[in-house]
Amino acid sequence: MKRRGIAILGSTGSIGTTALRVIARQPDRFHVVALTAHSNAALLRQQVREFHPSYVGMVNCSDANGDGWHRGTESLVEAATRPDADIVLNAIVGAAGLDATLAALHAGKRVALANKETLVVAGELVAKAAKLGKGEIVPVDSEHSAILQCIAGRDRREIRRVILTASGGPFRGWSESKLATATVTDALQHPTWTMGRKITIDSATLANKALEVIEAHFLFGLPYDSIEVVVHPQSVVHSFVEFVDGSVVAQMSVPSMELPVLYALTHPERAPDSGVQAFDPVALSPMTFEPVAHDKFPALKLGIAAGRRGGAAPAVFNAANEQAVSLFLEGKIQFAEISESIQSALDRLGDLPSDTREELLDADMKARRHVMELFEC
Amino acid sequence: MKRRGIAILGSTGSIGTTALRVIARQPDRFHVVALTAHSNAALLRQQVREFHPSYVGMVNCSDANGDGWHRGTESLVEAATRPDADIVLNAIVGAAGLDATLAALHAGKRVALANKETLVVAGELVAKAAKLGKGEIVPVDSEHSAILQCIAGRDRREIRRVILTASGGPFRGWSESKLATATVTDALQHPTWTMGRKITIDSATLANKALEVIEAHFLFGLPYDSIEVVVHPQSVVHSFVEFVDGSVVAQMSVPSMELPVLYALTHPERAPDSGVQAFDPVALSPMTFEPVAHDKFPALKLGIAAGRRGGAAPAVFNAANEQAVSLFLEGKIQFAEISESIQSALDRLGDLPSDTREELLDADMKARRHVMELFEC
Repeated sequence: MKRRGIAILGSTGSIGTTALRVIARQPDRFHVVALTAHSNAALLRQQVREFHPSYVGMVNCSDANGDGWHRGTESLVEAATRPDADIVLNAIVGAAGLDATLAALHAGKRVALANKETLVVAGELVAKAAKLGKGEIVPVDSEHSAILQCIAGRDRREIRRVILTASGGPFRGWSESKLATATVTDALQHPTWTMGRKITIDSATLANKALEVIEAHFLFGLPYDSIEVVVHPQSVVHSFVEFVDGSVVAQMSVPSMELPVLYALTHPERAPDSGVQAFDPVALSPMTFEPVAHDKFPALKLGIAAGRRGGAAPAVFNAANEQAVSLFLEGKIQFAEISESIQSALDRLGDLPSDTREELLDADMKARRHVMELFEC
Repeated sequence: MKRRGIAILGSTGSIGTTALRVIARQPDRFHVVALTAHSNAALLRQQVREFHPSYVGMVNCSDANGDGWHRGTESLVEAATRPDADIVLNAIVGAAGLDATLAALHAGKRVALANKETLVVAGELVAKAAKLGKGEIVPVDSEHSAILQCIAGRDRREIRRVILTASGGPFRGWSESKLATATVTDALQHPTWTMGRKITIDSATLANKALEVIEAHFLFGLPYDSIEVVVHPQSVVHSFVEFVDGSVVAQMSVPSMELPVLYALTHPERAPDSGVQAFDPVALSPMTFEPVAHDKFPALKLGIAAGRRGGAAPAVFNAANEQAVSLFLEGKIQFAEISESIQSALDRLGDLPSDTREELLDADMKARRHVMELFEC
């Protein structure tokens, strides 16, 4: 078996460190060829000592202090297009991951995509890049990994519908008045998943699930009418696929990102691995499912509407959300103002031109500026 | 698309009538070429009028009264080997279905197997027949259909474990003293599935689940250590497959045999069909799972032990169970005496010779006689 070279973009984050644990358990299948980090030089140095990549990049120049490390955002594209990289794990947060995804796909790589914003901002460009360069995208999100596992080897015309599961986040069941006073600390207490700060807030607003619906649309070529969301507080069933004959197949595990990260590397095969604890349905009982409380979490419907609208709308949705989450994390706006910001940005900017990468990044920038101005930041 | 010819053995039973409903909805894919029934001549006549098979068989000669109908048990093998039959649905109850399964496999047919006793009695002979004749077995049992759907297209070495679900039957949660007084009427009240009488009693004793464990062993080539059972009262999850990477895939639907019957005909494809109602996880919530109460339902462990023992033991288990269930349905023995009969027959006859069809049928006959003698019938 040929060992496949892995480039990890965002190696010091939650997905990046998970991926390194997974790869360390699979030395016969994988080896690390490139690592990039945003700013955590101490951890990156440690990772370099352990995994000996041939390329190391640090995005935030002021913090770069390793010998021979490459610097700046250009290092992302450089790492993503290394000839010794068979698979690029894009674990960058937000729209900043777009260029590396496009470059890797143009270079014919497999992109293991944890950076869902890439697909939301520029789904059609990404699909075009994959086609042109003969690259492929394999999702790392647990929901999309679940769908891929359920349909692997099947004709996609056999899919009637997918149902993405959502934990419901830390505010599931909160009253509207309690939600109005939700703090950053409250929002960072995710009930089932340990993740980075940005995605944890997105889980609290359900904006994350909107991003995932748009991601599913582009990944699997599904119309929005065929993508549904159900709240499943235990996060054991990672998604359902309903086929044309009415049969439903679902993928499950205890909540752990080890499995979707590994599967994104091994797909369509599976590698023996002990990273996920054995499945015990009795211990995981009951599994419950409930409808989304759309009135309390408007970001989900806003995002799906942006997806249906197409054009620049998904990019505007994503950028406004990124900016608002950032302001919320800084304590500058209230929880409910995140979705209000998104709504305002979509109303104003949803129809901007969107044919090129430059136009999409312009829409992204304008949406961020719009949110800043809303709060006079 | 070439329409495939279907022979249905046991067309007037629960699975047979379900299959005819399914086939009637799929006239472009399937047509009925042969029908056989045990003794319900009135219903068979009606089915013949609707489906125009080229062959009609009636096992119970005294009741046969259609023009040109074939008679006796030979009609099963004749129907199963018709040149115009591409698929043989074997929906006969009990070991009586064995010869038709063997003949169909020798003739290179697909056998859609609802008659699990076939595999339990003579799993190795059946496997040999399939290999020699280039026939194939596709399961109709909902649990095994679920497993097949979860692993379709995957390398079976990727399977770590399967978990069969059991509804727990009508006596789930009953105390031992209450169980001691259980009546035939009680035992026929299945909570989730509408099925024939014999399998409904087997669900009450969990002997059915033992037959299914043995069936899974032969169908999927799995060691007994890799086959587990969990009680799932809602019968929505039809079984789980755990892969070597720890990922679990499960197949679900509302309890309905329409789907596994259809899938056995279309496998590995799926046909658009409206026979199963749309999946609604909220309406089906909660899904619960609990351990088997082996102390109250000893037939399951007895059956698995018989499977591990191999040789004639599974045939003896099955025959003793068939005979005891028959006596229970006639009101001649108590509920607990079903598993006591099985235990006694296995103790006495489990090591009989088992190399040939004749030896296996001899063990079957001796086990039935042993149970009759136990109760001086």
